[in-house]
Amino acid sequence: MRIAVAQLNYKLGDFAGNFAKIANAIQTHHDYDLVVFSELCLSGYYPGDLIDYPQFLETQNHFLEKVSALTQNGPAVIIGFISKNPNKGKPFYNSLALFANHQQRTIYHKRLLPVYNIFDEARHFAPGKTPGIVEFNQLKIGLLICEDGWASLNDYLYDCDPVQDLMQHPLDLIICINGSPSNVGKQKERLTQFSSIAKRCQAPLIFTNQVGANDDIVFDGASFILDNEGKSLGALPSFSECVGTFSFNEGTIHSLNHFQQTSLVPEIALCYQQIILGLQDYAQKCGFHQVVLGVSGGLDSAITLALAVKALGARNVIGLAMPSRYSSKASLDDAMALCHTFNVQLFVASIEDEFSLALNQFTKIYGEKPKSLTEQNIQARLRGRFLMEYSNQTGALVLSTGNKSELSVGYTTLYGDMTGGLNLIGDLYKTEVYDLCEYFNQLHPDTPIPVNIIRKAPSAELAPEQKDSDNMPEYAILDPILKLYIEGDLLPKEEYSRYQTITAKLDPAIIKRVRNMVDKAEFKRRQAAPIIRLQRRAFGFGRQLPITGTFP
Amino acid sequence: MRIAVAQLNYKLGDFAGNFAKIANAIQTHHDYDLVVFSELCLSGYYPGDLIDYPQFLETQNHFLEKVSALTQNGPAVIIGFISKNPNKGKPFYNSLALFANHQQRTIYHKRLLPVYNIFDEARHFAPGKTPGIVEFNQLKIGLLICEDGWASLNDYLYDCDPVQDLMQHPLDLIICINGSPSNVGKQKERLTQFSSIAKRCQAPLIFTNQVGANDDIVFDGASFILDNEGKSLGALPSFSECVGTFSFNEGTIHSLNHFQQTSLVPEIALCYQQIILGLQDYAQKCGFHQVVLGVSGGLDSAITLALAVKALGARNVIGLAMPSRYSSKASLDDAMALCHTFNVQLFVASIEDEFSLALNQFTKIYGEKPKSLTEQNIQARLRGRFLMEYSNQTGALVLSTGNKSELSVGYTTLYGDMTGGLNLIGDLYKTEVYDLCEYFNQLHPDTPIPVNIIRKAPSAELAPEQKDSDNMPEYAILDPILKLYIEGDLLPKEEYSRYQTITAKLDPAIIKRVRNMVDKAEFKRRQAAPIIRLQRRAFGFGRQLPITGTFP
Repeated sequence: MRIAVAQLNYKLGDFAGNFAKIANAIQTHHDYDLVVFSELCLSGYYPGDLIDYPQFLETQNHFLEKVSALTQNGPAVIIGFISKNPNKGKPFYNSLALFANHQQRTIYHKRLLPVYNIFDEARHFAPGKTPGIVEFNQLKIGLLICEDGWASLNDYLYDCDPVQDLMQHPLDLIICINGSPSNVGKQKERLTQFSSIAKRCQAPLIFTNQVGANDDIVFDGASFILDNEGKSLGALPSFSECVGTFSFNEGTIHSLNHFQQTSLVPEIALCYQQIILGLQDYAQKCGFHQVVLGVSGGLDSAITLALAVKALGARNVIGLAMPSRYSSKASLDDAMALCHTFNVQLFVASIEDEFSLALNQFTKIYGEKPKSLTEQNIQARLRGRFLMEYSNQTGALVLSTGNKSELSVGYTTLYGDMTGGLNLIGDLYKTEVYDLCEYFNQLHPDTPIPVNIIRKAPSAELAPEQKDSDNMPEYAILDPILKLYIEGDLLPKEEYSRYQTITAKLDPAIIKRVRNMVDKAEFKRRQAAPIIRLQRRAFGFGRQLPITGTFP
Repeated sequence: MRIAVAQLNYKLGDFAGNFAKIANAIQTHHDYDLVVFSELCLSGYYPGDLIDYPQFLETQNHFLEKVSALTQNGPAVIIGFISKNPNKGKPFYNSLALFANHQQRTIYHKRLLPVYNIFDEARHFAPGKTPGIVEFNQLKIGLLICEDGWASLNDYLYDCDPVQDLMQHPLDLIICINGSPSNVGKQKERLTQFSSIAKRCQAPLIFTNQVGANDDIVFDGASFILDNEGKSLGALPSFSECVGTFSFNEGTIHSLNHFQQTSLVPEIALCYQQIILGLQDYAQKCGFHQVVLGVSGGLDSAITLALAVKALGARNVIGLAMPSRYSSKASLDDAMALCHTFNVQLFVASIEDEFSLALNQFTKIYGEKPKSLTEQNIQARLRGRFLMEYSNQTGALVLSTGNKSELSVGYTTLYGDMTGGLNLIGDLYKTEVYDLCEYFNQLHPDTPIPVNIIRKAPSAELAPEQKDSDNMPEYAILDPILKLYIEGDLLPKEEYSRYQTITAKLDPAIIKRVRNMVDKAEFKRRQAAPIIRLQRRAFGFGRQLPITGTFP
């Protein structure tokens, strides 16, 4: 029996486009027995309230029927889609079906619906009630959809365990289809979790995932196959489309194609690849050809530019250097050197004349001079406007360049440096941005981020001789405080302890002050550009806090 | 038996402050038998992910114990709070308890957890499994928490009906505690729904609600009492704190205090009051004393200014008129007349010098003139920056003034006119903004919005002789298209038909074009200021759509 595993990149709601990819995978494997796709692949995962649109289900079903038709003289197909719930409860199921010979041979409804972090499936779906087992080619196949496999890890969350139910039956194979977003640590967690499932059920296991980015969420693919002892037999590449194939005879998987030795992508490499794909997909799916960003000569804009060049090519990246009286000459030199290294067109647009005029106008209107904070924000907002001018004129997407440390404590200007349609590094704390730069320079020794930029002390250069450390604790201290506060509950034990060790030595007043800054900045983050999600808890939908609330 | 119903305004996570209000209501009714509070009142509804903070539950329980202690020599209390779920499933319940003589006499867990529109309770709570019935003072009391009462209306959503379960028992009284947000139509729906419950159970019913705003969500209070035929015996005032009292003897409710004849607040009056309270609470809970807004001489900024004055007083409202070469003299005159009428300080700050400089700089940098769109957005963003300068200098909250029609189709500038910490009228289509102005002028004949402002053709005045209708269909046509697209599924039948009749006559290409504009503007709305929610579906958390998605 020959099986193909299709790891494809879907666009949300684009049924015709998604069907074309699915059909192509089926047709190019017409002599296979089975092609396995991922969760909700006709609509893309996760379509959100598009599901409630009239005709959404109808349109999907039109293409689902076409998929079914392709099985008439082709391979059987296992595919994820939305189905109608005829019973009480939410109107839809998150379902999987096996189609063979133009017939629906079984349908299974996802039983565990994640409602935490970025997930909100109970908003649209009713949970399935029955285990999924299907006979196909004399094989007994157990069926799971994504979260169904995680009950034993999140055992406090659910009052049933679909895996436990599968264990009651002798199975020849388990197939789990997924829409599993990527974040640091996730590949390892998946392997550990599903190895234990294969072992518990004593059956080989196929894990398919989609690849690609939707808004701020990136899917890494990394679909894999396990033997009945839970040992990995190989994985499809991370962050790219791929249809892998293998043969399955008498309980043995062999003749794998396109599957690689499973090696987990290291955290920093994962962040790198995830950002690249995240930007590529955001641009492509929204129809942007070019990006523009402010290049200050600092680290955050440098790494953002470097990543954008690798994602879109140098000719599609435009830099704007926008010096003021507080910008050092070294900063402009660094910005120019950076753009030279990366072969990026750089416009130098001094904000000085407009800044001077703004200060004078302010004094004329209000009869008083702007305070330092006002002055600083004027500069940031002039720059934001310059970027948007370029965007309005050319259609380029503005990349926002704030890091997670800044966004956490609100050391950032709304409508100023927060300007942009997408933020590439907003889920990396400053110390992690350094790590990413180092990784980048190892990976691309011919186009390194200049060492000058990496070495200098971080500064917003919005006031004379300003350093970030004038306003906040040093990043080596700040970042562990933030990490514990924002995602401490989700960190692996050893990482948690490492940060605990650092913060335990600090004056509790500093920790309290930092946490307060985080709480107070919620109103800024509410208006932030989408931030490509990399970590276990990112700003955005995965962290839902009130602006008007207060605790403790 | 004497009962008090406490309709109070809670701040999210402020346990000490919320407890103080609760304690005060108990102590001022120390000779009563029972005081009934609302859902999750110790934390305020809805605390979101604050619930997951370490110490959140612990702190709540500290104050819950203090509430219990107050019942030692005082009235019994029915109160809503978060409790720990000792079983599998989500770690918390949304609970209600009856405390009497410093003892917890019963605990009931909310069974129906809303996960739709702005609600996401399954994110934190496990559903209760058992009906809530308690004996108190020889009375059998049925207990419900908010959504528990709505199964018969949303019957497709849930597979159990807590009301059905209560009907199995003879009850003397039903108490339903709520955190029920206000929107147009809601008061009527509540009365209809809970009248039918009282009737079905043949028992009088007490419905308590909180009052006040948390971020963009406003609670109207409007707690009410029904007799066992479902007839309303009175309601507490909408949009203000109040503790109402009554006596309940031998099945009869009498001696009501502070309860008013139930009369539903008409839609437009509801919007008015909701905006006023929404702004008051946002300012107060976030610590703002003053607001500032751009006053263009147009309708949207005029009504926003007028509402702000009624909410905060004229001395706490600052207007900025920011004319450019495209602003008519009439606009500035109108802005000045408006501020004169409302006794609001107006700064006139021409953006013309900066606009000229910006145009020149642009041409100098890029060797080409800015396109019309670029030019228009420069003006809007200069104004946004001026507003933020005032805010940075003084700490005033900037009010954003876009209406729902503009925000829907994206006829609005990110970081320009969208600048602000809160938007008062962003959930009203332009035609509804006219209705609100008319209502305002009836209500406040001494300080009317000048008729000039109401009568002139809407224009952004960002280009010569520009009218809104150059870029979009007339609002009389646009708004019905938008209303059907954005909230059609939630409208009452007669309203739906009315809009259908209008749009049925239109060229389908126009409808398609408008819907396309709405889809394309999702990226702008993602970065919008919180908009006070007024309608059945508002932009924000209640409408979750991808930016990168597309349908149809």
